[in-house]
Amino acid sequence: MVHTTQCCILMGCLCLFYPWSQVCEWREPEELAALLDLELRENGEPQHQLLQRIRDVAKYSVKTNHPRFFNQLFAGVDYHALTGRFLTEALNTSQYTYEVAPVFVLMEDEVLSKLRSLVGWAEGDGIFCPGGTMSNMYAMNVARYRAFPEVKLKGMWSLPRLAVFTSQQSHYSVMKAAAFQGIGTENVFKVKVDDRGCMIPEDLGETIELAKSQGAVPFFVHATSGTTVQGAFDPLEPIADICDRQGLWMHVDAAWGGSVLFSKEHKHLMRGVERADSVTWNPHKMMLTGLQCSAILLKDTTHLLKHCHSADAKYLFQQDKFYDTSLDTGDKSIQCGRKVDCLKLWLMWKAVGSKGLEERVDRAFTHTRYLVEEMQRREGFELIGKVAPVIKERMMKQGTMMLGYQPQGGRVNFFRMIVISPQLSHQDMTFCLNEIERLGNDL
Amino acid sequence: MVHTTQCCILMGCLCLFYPWSQVCEWREPEELAALLDLELRENGEPQHQLLQRIRDVAKYSVKTNHPRFFNQLFAGVDYHALTGRFLTEALNTSQYTYEVAPVFVLMEDEVLSKLRSLVGWAEGDGIFCPGGTMSNMYAMNVARYRAFPEVKLKGMWSLPRLAVFTSQQSHYSVMKAAAFQGIGTENVFKVKVDDRGCMIPEDLGETIELAKSQGAVPFFVHATSGTTVQGAFDPLEPIADICDRQGLWMHVDAAWGGSVLFSKEHKHLMRGVERADSVTWNPHKMMLTGLQCSAILLKDTTHLLKHCHSADAKYLFQQDKFYDTSLDTGDKSIQCGRKVDCLKLWLMWKAVGSKGLEERVDRAFTHTRYLVEEMQRREGFELIGKVAPVIKERMMKQGTMMLGYQPQGGRVNFFRMIVISPQLSHQDMTFCLNEIERLGNDL
Ligand SMILES: Cc1ncc(COP(=O)(O)O)c(C=O)c1O
Ligand SMILES: Cc1ncc(COP(=O)(O)O)c(C=O)c1O
Repeated sequence: MVHTTQCCILMGCLCLFYPWSQVCEWREPEELAALLDLELRENGEPQHQLLQRIRDVAKYSVKTNHPRFFNQLFAGVDYHALTGRFLTEALNTSQYTYEVAPVFVLMEDEVLSKLRSLVGWAEGDGIFCPGGTMSNMYAMNVARYRAFPEVKLKGMWSLPRLAVFTSQQSHYSVMKAAAFQGIGTENVFKVKVDDRGCMIPEDLGETIELAKSQGAVPFFVHATSGTTVQGAFDPLEPIADICDRQGLWMHVDAAWGGSVLFSKEHKHLMRGVERADSVTWNPHKMMLTGLQCSAILLKDTTHLLKHCHSADAKYLFQQDKFYDTSLDTGDKSIQCGRKVDCLKLWLMWKAVGSKGLEERVDRAFTHTRYLVEEMQRREGFELIGKVAPVIKERMMKQGTMMLGYQPQGGRVNFFRMIVISPQLSHQDMTFCLNEIERLGNDL
Repeated sequence: MVHTTQCCILMGCLCLFYPWSQVCEWREPEELAALLDLELRENGEPQHQLLQRIRDVAKYSVKTNHPRFFNQLFAGVDYHALTGRFLTEALNTSQYTYEVAPVFVLMEDEVLSKLRSLVGWAEGDGIFCPGGTMSNMYAMNVARYRAFPEVKLKGMWSLPRLAVFTSQQSHYSVMKAAAFQGIGTENVFKVKVDDRGCMIPEDLGETIELAKSQGAVPFFVHATSGTTVQGAFDPLEPIADICDRQGLWMHVDAAWGGSVLFSKEHKHLMRGVERADSVTWNPHKMMLTGLQCSAILLKDTTHLLKHCHSADAKYLFQQDKFYDTSLDTGDKSIQCGRKVDCLKLWLMWKAVGSKGLEERVDRAFTHTRYLVEEMQRREGFELIGKVAPVIKERMMKQGTMMLGYQPQGGRVNFFRMIVISPQLSHQDMTFCLNEIERLGNDL
């Protein structure tokens, strides 16, 4: 048993090192379903067949580790982080109490406090969540609880109609949060952005007045550091001024942009972030830890997070335990079982140091600058519009690279190029531009 | 680079096969923090030091794979599932579109449909969530949306005060959901249970009337198949009768108990489940897939899940794509990025077949029966009360096994023994009883 399964496990690891030449092997859904033989049956299968299945799963999956996967806000691979992920899986721990997760309770605390110190906070609170959307939801919920603690017991009926503020180009998780938490998407007020996609603070002020004039009670401003499509950084200082004046919770969604805080050269993009009440930061994006790794960080030191979410389950959080039960951090979470998401980040950080992470961020900016310059030197990159879907289809079917397109605001379809993997070179940038030209040559 | 990191990765895998004799190596928090040297610094560390860190993390973590870890509702290890987890990590995919996750979009669909067929539904909907608490939240949210679709846009202010019903011994995630979704914990009505911990249907009927008389509008009944502490199965048929009559959404939280549906001998415990509107089922508990693996299953065929949660982000869910965009299942989710949770379950199921899973469930019941008989033959196992925390402390410090205790209802502290790992034998049951006797000998 152990022999064959060990072999099986090694197989799982080794897929990664296969010399994949293509980013993807496109198959139509019906064809792929047939190739994979997905059906689950009464009887099990022999080992050699399972090994073949593992090979097939790897073969037809998109190689998100491939240097030419530019399609999402995650890419590349860091082998230390990957080791942390394998170890996490091997240990299979749920992160609620010191008793069950002694190492990871302490480790999460250290990692969170280090992230907070980059934000500029000597103290505070926080927790890892299954993704940035959840982290943003935590922020909105804790903000609501601070403003109206009775909501936990009595629900929204005891509250006035609330209003949330965010830019026109913020991530759609704000809408998901407002819907899920019973606030309603209509009560999310969209603030105008400038040409670069940054929130216009004057319009925030006016929108707040508008909401008030409609009888709504503002409580939450959701700013973004690194918007999803344009990568814009909202101006945090003037936003903080407004939040201060109005007594509003200021949240910074830095799911994508947070990692600039590692860089002495680029952290000015988030100037003023220390004035926020909460920050979402996804190391699984720019820092390459692998999914999932997202932190919600809070400036609060009054245990708001716990008061807001606790349910005091006696079977987990007994108070007659033989150790300091403040280490049982599980009741801060809206989850019960919670995967360990800190180890991969911790191990990578130990391996390359803050300095190594800073270099990666700086390198990504250098690549981006190069890409922009290259693009300006070429013709025909201005508007892609209706041809983008065709170029994309050809790209996928040939499997040479992957990047995403979308319209936004008044703009027609354009490609969004994500440059984060430390394995990338200037050659890859040039390849990417050449490839778009080649694929769209006859259009 | 690849050499040393491969070595590092293998190390990660191999920890698992170390001949651990103890379930845990207890250390006081301060001592452990010092041993682990958690601090994150400016500079990275050399490879040999990283390897030592990996060994330390493994050494001081609780061995949840150990046959004598009985502490939570997960335990043991299935090597096929573990392979699936490693492969998931190596591929690092986010499960939102067919374009990025072709294999996993199709695979999730197959696994969900197979789980639904065990529930008794030929059609339906569903999605994997980061844990049973989230799955339960999905159910409550979709139920609210079915009853009052305007809630998504307008929030709770457009709705009457709502009421949720669940048993006194249901999981605390019901309370977390009610708080998070703006319904309020006060609007969760607790229904009485009988001696075995099963919801009393007559009291459900009366509690619904009580809520109505207080002006609240019932919309959601949360029944449990396999309660967290006692493992009780609520009587689903009479509960379904009441839900039918009153037009309420019936949810079955089978996070723990769902796996009995594999067993011809034991599935009667969930008789009537096919009449539910939704079911939560955590394969990461009784089925040993490893965290996280939880499904929310719905009977609905009208795309409620998508209508309720969609935000139609244009950068992910473009409608001018070159393939059938109904395969882009990401907008059913309240998340954006979503880890692949189906592969580990699929691979294990392929490996052992439905038959193999059935045998595991049956074996767990046999062990439990044996344990109960053994316990009845011994004296002093009736009430543990104040000595439980002391026994627990000694157990942890000696590291011989781990099981949890808690009070419940009128009962003082008692130990909760979880028996699921297929590696378990009757000897382990006997060991466990002997060990409690030994540890509590002088008390
Ligand atoms: C700005 C921003 N916030 C939040 C998120 C959501 O993060 P996640 O995908 O981890 O839920 C994203 C995802 O792309 C994002 O770009
Ligand atoms: C009956 C029941 N429902 C839901 C849950 C929550 O599951 P999770 O820990 O995956 O959030 C549990 C956890 O123990 C449970 O026992």
